[in-house]
Amino acid sequence: MKPNVLVIAGHDPSGGAGIHADIEAIHSLGGFAATLITGLTVQNSSNVQGFELVSEQLLQRQAEALLADMRFDAVKIGMTGSPGIIHFIADLLDRLPGVPVVLDPVLAAEAGGRLAADSVPDAMLRELLPRATLATPNLPEAQKLAGNEDLATCGTALCNAGCPAVLITGTHDDTPQVRNHLYTATGAQQWAWPRLPGSYHGSGCTLASACAALLAAGQPLEQAVEQAQAYVHQALRHAWQAGQGQLIPDRRRHD
Amino acid sequence: MKPNVLVIAGHDPSGGAGIHADIEAIHSLGGFAATLITGLTVQNSSNVQGFELVSEQLLQRQAEALLADMRFDAVKIGMTGSPGIIHFIADLLDRLPGVPVVLDPVLAAEAGGRLAADSVPDAMLRELLPRATLATPNLPEAQKLAGNEDLATCGTALCNAGCPAVLITGTHDDTPQVRNHLYTATGAQQWAWPRLPGSYHGSGCTLASACAALLAAGQPLEQAVEQAQAYVHQALRHAWQAGQGQLIPDRRRHD
Repeated sequence: MKPNVLVIAGHDPSGGAGIHADIEAIHSLGGFAATLITGLTVQNSSNVQGFELVSEQLLQRQAEALLADMRFDAVKIGMTGSPGIIHFIADLLDRLPGVPVVLDPVLAAEAGGRLAADSVPDAMLRELLPRATLATPNLPEAQKLAGNEDLATCGTALCNAGCPAVLITGTHDDTPQVRNHLYTATGAQQWAWPRLPGSYHGSGCTLASACAALLAAGQPLEQAVEQAQAYVHQALRHAWQAGQGQLIPDRRRHD
Repeated sequence: MKPNVLVIAGHDPSGGAGIHADIEAIHSLGGFAATLITGLTVQNSSNVQGFELVSEQLLQRQAEALLADMRFDAVKIGMTGSPGIIHFIADLLDRLPGVPVVLDPVLAAEAGGRLAADSVPDAMLRELLPRATLATPNLPEAQKLAGNEDLATCGTALCNAGCPAVLITGTHDDTPQVRNHLYTATGAQQWAWPRLPGSYHGSGCTLASACAALLAAGQPLEQAVEQAQAYVHQALRHAWQAGQGQLIPDRRRHD
């Protein structure tokens, strides 16, 4: 048996991000991914050119087929795209009580292309943060969600929105090291990783899915968060150039 | 660097078949998968309940983004769904001269649920078989495409349709062993594998993607076909019950 992870996220045809990243990371960490695709994007390793959302009716039919068949040990949420899909996800989470939920609040691609309507942050704060076990925003996403520039204020605000643990990643910061900060009710802790040269496609998806796979396997939260970061760091160290744009993390196990 | 495989196939939310199987198999065999999703299916480990095809306009935009960015070392085609999408794929293949193409002529799911319009076999024969390097139908698919019940006649007919190598798999037969037959212009050869108990979700997708990954890595055709079968046999041997229906092949490397 392997732990089942329900992934709710977008599809990136170029294979760097979205459910490709999720499937590869969960597969490499010993789990099994089922996926509900919220949005079909047009993108390559350079950037996102557009997207079409999947209808909530189709998502609902797919979700019913999955829930009738499988038990899930964790949920990973990536691109949501619209308040309507966020509402569908919130209802679905209410049918999975006790299952850890990792929320990667995707608002844009690593290279900046938009992946969500303007009304998404409000719906996410109201409907998803209170249902998540762990949120993994990067600093710009945390600032947008919290409406504040200050890192610690963002961490506290997102915890106060109802999410017990918030990992704010420092990839988009300009510090010499990448500093990731975990905020919980009992305080904050941080990890520092060497900042690698270059730009990576799908590192945020990979991190959130790694956290979900490790929580699904029964790891305690802080241990899962630490091991997921180590896994992503290795994937970035082994990244390669599949296209002409950003590097692609190599999500096989390297340890 | 890893070889890039362009996958054109359906999406199975339950993770057993479709692009999940493709991504996992290609990832495990050292390649990298980019994917164009032709159809979003409603299914679980028991069967297919329905599907919605993706518009050719969106597929075209996605294909342009990929071709502008990446070079491909092989193409794998799975679910096509409609003559319109088959025509789109044929045009796309004409823009990738010299790239090996593996065609898994998906007409139905392993458990029998339909995945293609009635007009698909004709369009496949006319537009895809002549552009493929290797086709991997199971026996019912080969019989439907060739309009004949006899195995060897099917093999010859599909080669005559313009495909230089046709591997007809015997999973759906009732022989004590699973006998897979490869037909080429120079003759036929066969492999026999122990027939494993139980029913498997996504074994056909896994086989075709394994062939594509090995061809992308530069293996000669017969060697790729043999090694892909051995890989799938191991994946089936390690299959497990993710839901309540068919077993899921474990697509990690087991050697």
